[in-house]
Amino acid sequence: MHLARATWTEVADLETDLAVVPVGSTEQHGPHAPLGTDFLAAEAVAEAGVEAFDGDVVLAPTIPLGVAEEHRHFPGTMWLSPDTFRAVVRESVASLASHGFDRVVLVNGHGGNVDALREASGTITRHDDAYAVSFTWFENVGDHASEMGHGGPLETALVRHCHPDLVREARLEEAREGAAERWGEWVSHTNLAHDSAAFTANGVVGDPTAGSAARGAELLELAAAALARLLEAVSERDVSRPDRR
Amino acid sequence: MHLARATWTEVADLETDLAVVPVGSTEQHGPHAPLGTDFLAAEAVAEAGVEAFDGDVVLAPTIPLGVAEEHRHFPGTMWLSPDTFRAVVRESVASLASHGFDRVVLVNGHGGNVDALREASGTITRHDDAYAVSFTWFENVGDHASEMGHGGPLETALVRHCHPDLVREARLEEAREGAAERWGEWVSHTNLAHDSAAFTANGVVGDPTAGSAARGAELLELAAAALARLLEAVSERDVSRPDRR
Amino acid sequence: MHLARATWTEVADLETDLAVVPVGSTEQHGPHAPLGTDFLAAEAVAEAGVEAFDGDVVLAPTIPLGVAEEHRHFPGTMWLSPDTFRAVVRESVASLASHGFDRVVLVNGHGGNVDALREASGTITRHDDAYAVSFTWFENVGDHASEMGHGGPLETALVRHCHPDLVREARLEEAREGAAERWGEWVSHTNLAHDSAAFTANGVVGDPTAGSAARGAELLELAAAALARLLEAVSERDVSRPDRR
Amino acid sequence: MHLARATWTEVADLETDLAVVPVGSTEQHGPHAPLGTDFLAAEAVAEAGVEAFDGDVVLAPTIPLGVAEEHRHFPGTMWLSPDTFRAVVRESVASLASHGFDRVVLVNGHGGNVDALREASGTITRHDDAYAVSFTWFENVGDHASEMGHGGPLETALVRHCHPDLVREARLEEAREGAAERWGEWVSHTNLAHDSAAFTANGVVGDPTAGSAARGAELLELAAAALARLLEAVSERDVSRPDRR
Amino acid sequence: MHLARATWTEVADLETDLAVVPVGSTEQHGPHAPLGTDFLAAEAVAEAGVEAFDGDVVLAPTIPLGVAEEHRHFPGTMWLSPDTFRAVVRESVASLASHGFDRVVLVNGHGGNVDALREASGTITRHDDAYAVSFTWFENVGDHASEMGHGGPLETALVRHCHPDLVREARLEEAREGAAERWGEWVSHTNLAHDSAAFTANGVVGDPTAGSAARGAELLELAAAALARLLEAVSERDVSRPDRR
Amino acid sequence: MHLARATWTEVADLETDLAVVPVGSTEQHGPHAPLGTDFLAAEAVAEAGVEAFDGDVVLAPTIPLGVAEEHRHFPGTMWLSPDTFRAVVRESVASLASHGFDRVVLVNGHGGNVDALREASGTITRHDDAYAVSFTWFENVGDHASEMGHGGPLETALVRHCHPDLVREARLEEAREGAAERWGEWVSHTNLAHDSAAFTANGVVGDPTAGSAARGAELLELAAAALARLLEAVSERDVSRPDRR
Repeated sequence: MHLARATWTEVADLETDLAVVPVGSTEQHGPHAPLGTDFLAAEAVAEAGVEAFDGDVVLAPTIPLGVAEEHRHFPGTMWLSPDTFRAVVRESVASLASHGFDRVVLVNGHGGNVDALREASGTITRHDDAYAVSFTWFENVGDHASEMGHGGPLETALVRHCHPDLVREARLEEAREGAAERWGEWVSHTNLAHDSAAFTANGVVGDPTAGSAARGAELLELAAAALARLLEAVSERDVSRPDRR
Repeated sequence: MHLARATWTEVADLETDLAVVPVGSTEQHGPHAPLGTDFLAAEAVAEAGVEAFDGDVVLAPTIPLGVAEEHRHFPGTMWLSPDTFRAVVRESVASLASHGFDRVVLVNGHGGNVDALREASGTITRHDDAYAVSFTWFENVGDHASEMGHGGPLETALVRHCHPDLVREARLEEAREGAAERWGEWVSHTNLAHDSAAFTANGVVGDPTAGSAARGAELLELAAAALARLLEAVSERDVSRPDRR
Repeated sequence: MHLARATWTEVADLETDLAVVPVGSTEQHGPHAPLGTDFLAAEAVAEAGVEAFDGDVVLAPTIPLGVAEEHRHFPGTMWLSPDTFRAVVRESVASLASHGFDRVVLVNGHGGNVDALREASGTITRHDDAYAVSFTWFENVGDHASEMGHGGPLETALVRHCHPDLVREARLEEAREGAAERWGEWVSHTNLAHDSAAFTANGVVGDPTAGSAARGAELLELAAAALARLLEAVSERDVSRPDRR
Repeated sequence: MHLARATWTEVADLETDLAVVPVGSTEQHGPHAPLGTDFLAAEAVAEAGVEAFDGDVVLAPTIPLGVAEEHRHFPGTMWLSPDTFRAVVRESVASLASHGFDRVVLVNGHGGNVDALREASGTITRHDDAYAVSFTWFENVGDHASEMGHGGPLETALVRHCHPDLVREARLEEAREGAAERWGEWVSHTNLAHDSAAFTANGVVGDPTAGSAARGAELLELAAAALARLLEAVSERDVSRPDRR
Repeated sequence: MHLARATWTEVADLETDLAVVPVGSTEQHGPHAPLGTDFLAAEAVAEAGVEAFDGDVVLAPTIPLGVAEEHRHFPGTMWLSPDTFRAVVRESVASLASHGFDRVVLVNGHGGNVDALREASGTITRHDDAYAVSFTWFENVGDHASEMGHGGPLETALVRHCHPDLVREARLEEAREGAAERWGEWVSHTNLAHDSAAFTANGVVGDPTAGSAARGAELLELAAAALARLLEAVSERDVSRPDRR
Repeated sequence: MHLARATWTEVADLETDLAVVPVGSTEQHGPHAPLGTDFLAAEAVAEAGVEAFDGDVVLAPTIPLGVAEEHRHFPGTMWLSPDTFRAVVRESVASLASHGFDRVVLVNGHGGNVDALREASGTITRHDDAYAVSFTWFENVGDHASEMGHGGPLETALVRHCHPDLVREARLEEAREGAAERWGEWVSHTNLAHDSAAFTANGVVGDPTAGSAARGAELLELAAAALARLLEAVSERDVSRPDRR
């Protein structure tokens, strides 16, 4: 059930404790892909995963802003501080839980959100009246996962499949040429570059021309299936807290 | 320009300092109107107002959550604390301003956000590198404004016009019958009721059956024109700070 | 009972759950009225209202600082951030409530405090162990209310009545001449001016020469009667929280 | 100059950078002395000290609430958290400094405020645009200082001198009988008692019958002279920051 | 140079901008390894790495507490909230940078600190007057890294090498028997378990009997060499901020 | 029991509710004494005091950073803000208390920490699930206490006794010559100097040549005995909260 499209009376009739909150970012994705790529992807995966799951799930509205200051040198990028982002997540989950939707999966479309979501879901589970975990779609696409970049093959493919009008076909070649091969500058497993502008000229990492719409369809199906499995596990989990030793 | 649908290279080519951020809420709007009413309305008015304005404006993605704890007794209502909401607004404006979009109008669809937006826009203007003001659509619909309730004639009309599938026609009569006549319980210009559940049985204030789609079209046009006038004024305003006396 | 003048043993003997906290501001009020106008007015109204009410009320000391950064360009203006002001209010109410005075009316003398008081009283009522509402005196003076400005007829009248030595009679004419006619600069129901120095040369809004001491006496009586009615309503109100729907 | 009684135009004409902010508390002072003792004393000393000083000083309104949770078991005691109290002090000083009054003496009447004032004045001096120090009146009364208790000889004397109607003469004997001899319960220079209710039955420490009005007059004179000396030193001090070594 | 053992005059004579801050945790490491394992390891690696590096480095005292609430069910575990931990790191780096040591490597011994260190070093580098990165020793031990558990082969080996008296040889077998095979409970790349007590009976993950002292010596040498390479890279890096696109 | 050296299983076997947390600072102590003086002293006293006490005590790892911004002008000084320091203390105590060690003595080696420790221990005792007090070693050395300076006779003596290699004998004479005679610059019991660089050329206050190792041994014994007495008192104290009056 899309929460934003439902009435409160319809929500009152639901018998589930499961909710999904899509979280993304509005940030540069190269010269060919839209700034909204991350939240559009999170939203698409969340919808497909909820659809694939056998049971009722409350689907909250998508949070379009994330922890993206690393892209601040590229025009149009918006960001929240990690503190504010965590507060948004924590309070969103708390309000859902107040209505009984107290098993919540945060469906994420942005790498920069991963740490903050892990921390927030731990805090929620330990200190609030809810159980929360986060799920990042591009970690859940089988072998494709190794090709994740930024505005690269996977994200380009997914947007092409879900929002074909939003990929600038004419700029794909340019996007490929200005792209970096990998994310960051690494020495001793430490990334020396805190901002993406330090290592990518046009904001892209990976080859976006390898991101066909057909591949996007496959990615969506893989991610949706993985999310459905997670929803199943979350719905059945014993979420009582462990005993002290 | 819809920021989320644009690429950073397109944003870089813009020559404007104007941005609009739609802000709403996900909260009960009676048995007939969707929980997303406030952000859908803010989004519709923002789009129409930007369209009506003669000049470029960056249209940021809509913030779907607001200061709505007053509706917490109705299932599905989500809310942010005022502190978090203000932080979201302030950081959103700061990131837009970092790219030169430093005259920002916050287009609001929820009464509960008004105070927080006024405070946040004052803080931004006094202490950050941007000028911000807020605009609430239902204050800008001429004489209709006096009929604003909650899920009442104005909001029902606007949703019917913009998202006709989201109004439950079959429950309008029930919505009318359970509605309160006015917002709050007042003594000496003080509202004694901090939560809407104290004075409305079904969450509605006002008569939703008076909210035809035609009326919605008129409301949208009025609000859009008012927003365009505000954008004009903001674009021309001398935003340098006053002199000390 | 004036709390500050009482001993704790006298407070222990009281049988009431009602308290009043006067809150004001120290800020410019033109060349003719004192910087303390707002807290002196709040204090006078609070005293008169408590006197007019038939029952015991704890009258806390007056908080002399408020949310007044909008007047910062005028020498002598002091202000708290809204966050600090809300914390002062919330903690003041919490300490009163710890002694059983858990129905609290915040009696306010400054327009800039209104939003923060509404938020703080909502937070207190929803999350703390007390019920709180705020009352602003110049909204409770019948038809006079439409003439409220800043250092204008109403405030000048009240100070003249309560503290006649604090109005500079010799500067009233100058005050009138340099005054603005209305508060703010408005387009589409949005005030474009965040600071008063943007629209008033000498800090005054309205005509202070229309503020006679006799009018002040009338204002005080009207406001005190309204406050007494509010205290009556608060003392009788069922402050249990509403049921979830 | 009493800031609250002055107009902004009068403040604008001042040529000084000195300000004084009286800070106190509203807390139990035994069965004989008023809850306002601390702020009334701070106010009286501040006024007398400013009077005794040869030069202009801005005298801000008195802050009537302090760090007094230690007295929470006695009815009527109000308190701010140390964080909020420090914020009030810091923001008060910052607004005074914005007008050029950037050498500020915080005149204190409550032992529980001492640590927080020391921290706040250090923070202000190191990080803000002002120089601040705090002064506690009962440390500045010569040999009398050794007799300071709580609601004991010194405070009783000062209130008797400044506000004779506020000392309950009929309860002095009772106050004396229920008093503790010293503040706290000490082992190895550590006070084991965090709350005053742990060691005083009626809230008093010391013998209030030893606090005559004549002694109060002497205390006021001593404290005022000490404050005047401090104002002299502050006005002449080189407040530029030290060099790094 | 060990900062804590140096005098300020010796520090003043240094010509370097490099500093290292070891950060660990005090938390359960099974029945055989000490609660201090993580900070002792961080300290040992930091010392060896600084030694291996060809140049001067300021070695700050070790921070013995970290983000370890996940182990709270095991007696003796101490933890800071992520917010406080990040503040400690940020302020430590800021004070070092104030003396010119503004290229800082945070040498980490605890997996639970990784996210918070990444965030803090990004914040420092973007907003403060320093450049910071973090380094986690057990990611920098070549192929051994794949065997990292908790109190498992790697940590047991390192403690045995550096602090042989702190490993309880007699309890190694018991530690092995009660150990979990892997960290966490995973579905769709999401760890469902927020607390370690959910998946390990005695707090151990991995086989501690595979952690000989000789292996510990090798681990230390590998980690120290990697840290020395990172120090070299940090000392030579252009830390000016990237250009806006 | 040294917590960091123990295993969780050993901690689980303890039957005590007493814990000690040594807290110090890393800050300049003149040209002759190490920057770590304060935390090394706190650690030595804590160990000796725990040893002298007849009963089990958990000895937590030493917190090496404190409230020391006052020494910021001297190279190598590190500091935490008072807010962060208090959070570290409060969270450390909370985690110890979660395991049943809920009577905690904070053993302090730095004057600048005293106020913050008093506040934190009050907050903990009133609002958390633990009882806490702080103990500062140099207040507990009998008549020696009057000679406490900074890097002066007492601290020099203690370091010479506990860590003789860390006192630079060759620089003692220079240290003495550049020392100030007293801490601060005082007028009317107010210290006008917020930073130590304002009144001491080389960071020293007092005569370090008067700090022999033999004196250090005596100081340690005195302080340890005082701490043992405090532990005794804390272990036996009725820590239930007082009754309301």
